[in-house]
Amino acid sequence: MQSITSKDNPAVKLYRKLSENKKYRRETGMFILEGARLIDDAIKENAGLHTVFAAEKCAEDFFSKRNFSWTECYIISDELADKMSDTGTTQGVFAVCRIPQRSPADKIIRRGGKYLLLYEVRDPGNLGTIIRTADAVGMDGVFLSDCCELYNPKVVRSTMGSIFRLNVSEIGFDEVFPVFAEMGVETFAAVVDADAVPLTECDLSGGAAVLIGNEGNGLPYGISNICDKKITIKMHGNINSLNAAMAAGIIMWECTKNGI
Amino acid sequence: MQSITSKDNPAVKLYRKLSENKKYRRETGMFILEGARLIDDAIKENAGLHTVFAAEKCAEDFFSKRNFSWTECYIISDELADKMSDTGTTQGVFAVCRIPQRSPADKIIRRGGKYLLLYEVRDPGNLGTIIRTADAVGMDGVFLSDCCELYNPKVVRSTMGSIFRLNVSEIGFDEVFPVFAEMGVETFAAVVDADAVPLTECDLSGGAAVLIGNEGNGLPYGISNICDKKITIKMHGNINSLNAAMAAGIIMWECTKNGI
Repeated sequence: MQSITSKDNPAVKLYRKLSENKKYRRETGMFILEGARLIDDAIKENAGLHTVFAAEKCAEDFFSKRNFSWTECYIISDELADKMSDTGTTQGVFAVCRIPQRSPADKIIRRGGKYLLLYEVRDPGNLGTIIRTADAVGMDGVFLSDCCELYNPKVVRSTMGSIFRLNVSEIGFDEVFPVFAEMGVETFAAVVDADAVPLTECDLSGGAAVLIGNEGNGLPYGISNICDKKITIKMHGNINSLNAAMAAGIIMWECTKNGI
Repeated sequence: MQSITSKDNPAVKLYRKLSENKKYRRETGMFILEGARLIDDAIKENAGLHTVFAAEKCAEDFFSKRNFSWTECYIISDELADKMSDTGTTQGVFAVCRIPQRSPADKIIRRGGKYLLLYEVRDPGNLGTIIRTADAVGMDGVFLSDCCELYNPKVVRSTMGSIFRLNVSEIGFDEVFPVFAEMGVETFAAVVDADAVPLTECDLSGGAAVLIGNEGNGLPYGISNICDKKITIKMHGNINSLNAAMAAGIIMWECTKNGI
């Protein structure tokens, strides 16, 4: 197995450019992973690993326990691992992974399914947490419209591997709404509005697609208005709103809790 | 009103030392706030503001709209505001606030109330989000045992002002458990355990105290075992757990949703 000590090695340069540059991720169709847990989740779900790196301090142990026959593998110096890391204390293992081909909406959406649509969710930690929660409670898919980029390293990390298990697609509303209608999946706009139906009075047990808007601004009227219903989480006291990820989590819980 | 341009001014030094030093916050009984929204929340809840600073660029507007008759007020240079800021783009307003005296457990806990106990929650963002959510859904109090410090600037910021509205206390379990027993408030340990009662089958509508443990390790056996019941959020598929803040949020929602 080849050892690398230089940050100018082409495989290392590919990794580092992918870690920093969204446009380059789009052009190459690749993204990066850091840490053994994420790499193991990628292996388990047959994600397309392109390159794997392990630092000298852990390479023997790491590679002996995994089979990477179709992946380029490198041992890197511990110094180089520190340079490649995006976290304070690195395990020293990294990978480049191929972005999967996105399934068309009509292959994901089915009658009776539960879906989340996110509009302009911009914080990577929020997006990752929402995807992790959607996977935990058993949603059937998450669609992203004008959100923070799905393959941003912070999003990938905070999904804790759910990015490999769950159907998550960057997609336009115009592509999904006709399929929801065709499949009889009701659409619910989550809003902060006294006139909306309280979540406690909603029946989300049939097929449901829940729309969640931007952290600061919520859903624009033009979008909430094309949904079948507007729903709201009634708040106590004088505060404006829950964190967007928390609101999404509570609504997803109500969608799925009787089916798990 | 006095203008300050030097970072060596004693009021500025107090602010900066409080922003960085947990021990100094304890010794002085003070903590810091950044941003107009947090300062306005502090005013609204009659929190003890000790000092307020506003940058030249916004001082006239900021001070003209608020009444700080019992607080030291300073105008600071815009350069100094950038140095004092903990965020990328600062509004330029800052305050030093007194840590309130903690109420004893028997003044907070009442028959039929809903409480959250956090044990070893270590991430400031998680702690702040949990406190914000507890306020939003209407919990009656949050108790912290061996958690990240409540007055850490990141915690304060991510509570979005809920730190001023909600009863939050750093307290030992030995102080609260006898009061729960006396008031007939049932204690529920949130665990990841197939034998625990699923949250969907729990009745949390009476008084309830829910215990949530550390992000990685959950609750130790010695603690979950002294609770009246163990409860769990049943998960879909092959993932281990929800984010601690999300798990806390979903359980608090179930505690309070019929009472809002």
